Amino acid sequence: MTNGRFISLEGGEGTGKSTQAKALGAALEARGLTAHLTREPGGTPGAETIRQLLLSGHDDKWNMRTEAMLFAAARAEHCATLIKPAIARGDWVICDRFIDSSRAYQTVSGVLGDDDIMKIHQVGSDGFMPDRTFILDLPEDIAARRANARDRGDSDRIGGRDSGYHSAVMANFRRYATEEPTRVKLIDASAAPDAITSALLDNLADLLS
Amino acid sequence: MTNGRFISLEGGEGTGKSTQAKALGAALEARGLTAHLTREPGGTPGAETIRQLLLSGHDDKWNMRTEAMLFAAARAEHCATLIKPAIARGDWVICDRFIDSSRAYQTVSGVLGDDDIMKIHQVGSDGFMPDRTFILDLPEDIAARRANARDRGDSDRIGGRDSGYHSAVMANFRRYATEEPTRVKLIDASAAPDAITSALLDNLADLLS
Repeated sequence: MTNGRFISLEGGEGTGKSTQAKALGAALEARGLTAHLTREPGGTPGAETIRQLLLSGHDDKWNMRTEAMLFAAARAEHCATLIKPAIARGDWVICDRFIDSSRAYQTVSGVLGDDDIMKIHQVGSDGFMPDRTFILDLPEDIAARRANARDRGDSDRIGGRDSGYHSAVMANFRRYATEEPTRVKLIDASAAPDAITSALLDNLADLLS
Repeated sequence: MTNGRFISLEGGEGTGKSTQAKALGAALEARGLTAHLTREPGGTPGAETIRQLLLSGHDDKWNMRTEAMLFAAARAEHCATLIKPAIARGDWVICDRFIDSSRAYQTVSGVLGDDDIMKIHQVGSDGFMPDRTFILDLPEDIAARRANARDRGDSDRIGGRDSGYHSAVMANFRRYATEEPTRVKLIDASAAPDAITSALLDNLADLLS
């Protein structure tokens, strides 16, 4: 049996996370591995019902603390019923967003700190962490242009927040890459899609060997 | 302005919590106080949508950790948007179930401990605690008879669990009264309703003076 691995893709809206998740999954399958593509919040029927509560409605629909708890609830369900069982079987799981999104987004308002987010992750999901996390990083002007294109109807409750908010989120993501250089890799998301997929695979060499 | 106070009523299904909440609210209003009656999970429109996720469906619908997070999410919303603002205005809030229900029910399976429940309460609701908590305590045979009567359709996902589960819950509740005798009072719920209301008021004398 191979070692199951858990990979998360992080970054703002429009950075190509879901495109890269698919390409990475295909590349892993081509190597004979079983790869599951999933996303957060959601990924299981129960967690998707929590996703609906989180992403629909007005920006001020939930208190910040409620929002953090709902994300943790969806993640608890996702870890227990999909991610951990797949990894225990020796499969790979590629997840579009995971704990670093909670850390990056939910601490911007200053109501909750990184230690609060990690504390509820400990209780909700036993502190389960990805083997590797890729931050898809775009220059601010390109990210803003892509996000604006999405704003014509595609953006959800959180994606629709202003550019100052999204800059603060990206600054958080970049900090995690500095603080945890083994787990978290910053990837230039302005490159061509194939080049990005190659960069991801290069950065998985130690886990694939 | 009077001091706002927060009172919770706890105990199993069929112990008379909602009857006593109404009677206590009326007695406080008769003393010129403003009393809000509310309940958990729920109490606000957002928290009631979380309640629906929690109490409908099969007993094994949610992983235990997910369930604990959803209760904490509903409580975070309830505290932030209803309970704390009311108390800040100098009102009384009487709540049918609060944190002690999470502690008593969600630790029975052994997956989560009391410290886990209190940790997520700290992050979700800033560790907000009632000024006084009444445990409505019924002898096991009467409680089982009332619960059985409810089981003909009235019982929800959690109320419908077996009697061993509910005995363990009650043992937890009784322990809180021993551990925190100032905040938590054990009330004989087999007495006549009027006598129970009088006992509650007697046990609020220090907060009413």
